[in-house]
Amino acid sequence: MTSHEACCILNASDQVARVEIMIFFESEDPVGPYRFEIGAQRTRHLRFNNFEAPKKIPRDTPYSSVIQSDVPIVVQHTRLDSRQAENALLSTIAFPSD
Amino acid sequence: MTSHEACCILNASDQVARVEIMIFFESEDPVGPYRFEIGAQRTRHLRFNNFEAPKKIPRDTPYSSVIQSDVPIVVQHTRLDSRQAENALLSTIAFPSD
Amino acid sequence: MTSHEACCILNASDQVARVEIMIFFESEDPVGPYRFEIGAQRTRHLRFNNFEAPKKIPRDTPYSSVIQSDVPIVVQHTRLDSRQAENALLSTIAFPSD
Amino acid sequence: MTSHEACCILNASDQVARVEIMIFFESEDPVGPYRFEIGAQRTRHLRFNNFEAPKKIPRDTPYSSVIQSDVPIVVQHTRLDSRQAENALLSTIAFPSD
Repeated sequence: MTSHEACCILNASDQVARVEIMIFFESEDPVGPYRFEIGAQRTRHLRFNNFEAPKKIPRDTPYSSVIQSDVPIVVQHTRLDSRQAENALLSTIAFPSD
Repeated sequence: MTSHEACCILNASDQVARVEIMIFFESEDPVGPYRFEIGAQRTRHLRFNNFEAPKKIPRDTPYSSVIQSDVPIVVQHTRLDSRQAENALLSTIAFPSD
Repeated sequence: MTSHEACCILNASDQVARVEIMIFFESEDPVGPYRFEIGAQRTRHLRFNNFEAPKKIPRDTPYSSVIQSDVPIVVQHTRLDSRQAENALLSTIAFPSD
Repeated sequence: MTSHEACCILNASDQVARVEIMIFFESEDPVGPYRFEIGAQRTRHLRFNNFEAPKKIPRDTPYSSVIQSDVPIVVQHTRLDSRQAENALLSTIAFPSD
């Protein structure tokens, strides 16, 4: 069974949220940013396995993600694999856009 | 097995809490507010499947909820379905009432 | 299988922590405070089923707890029962002592 | 089955993070600090069972950990054992270094 790492993003604001995700590893430089838009007053479900550009995330390498947005968002990070039940993290991160 | 999404609200204050819940979707406009009261120094368990007005929440559509209250409350959001063990989120949101 | 609701309290400070726990219900007045001390630089595991004074917590009634301490503490609340895997909440609450 | 307590630390900053972990018990003095470095823009996975100096953590004794770092870090604490599914805690702690 492969790992299904995903995050669900809620943009409850009245503006489109431009989101950037950086992926960090134990012994490699971080990759990204992966860029997404979440419509005003919408949710969006992102599967890390489906990230394509700038490059695919390696399958069997542990990683952490940092998610930044130009409007306040709510992020729920979930992970499902064969060794564990479920691992849920809530974090909210925002940075001012240029 | 159907999904049993619920939240447990604690109002530890000395006043009745008037709570409004908005539901957000991936490709539809948000619905709500669903309105509830939680007595002073009481807890209340709300099942999203039982929300009726302004309309039922569709069964097989992912959604996020935003809960607002006129007094500080504690919200524990739980979800049980056949694919996952349990997914617990703690969030506290308050807004000044008019 | 009975429910085993418990909390684990960490007092990383250099002073004894005096802790008070209030229990809130859906349709009854809250009970408490239940009083405990946690030594300086110690952890303590409390099982809600074992709370005796001012009175036992009823077994089949949902409740919420509010934990207050005269020094900053870390509280991890856990619950195990037959219907769910595990439900972990982290909260930190402090109030000034008299 | 033995307990596999671990934490995953993310250092998203541009500087090496020097981390100190203290372990607290119910009826013994705390032990530590255990010292680790996490490279700039790297993650690191630490298993508590592998901590050696100043001394091994006893296997069957409940404990809590406090993690401090000289740069802001993100810590995800996980625990797997035979009695529970998974227990995830997110905490972020920073202190100024000398």
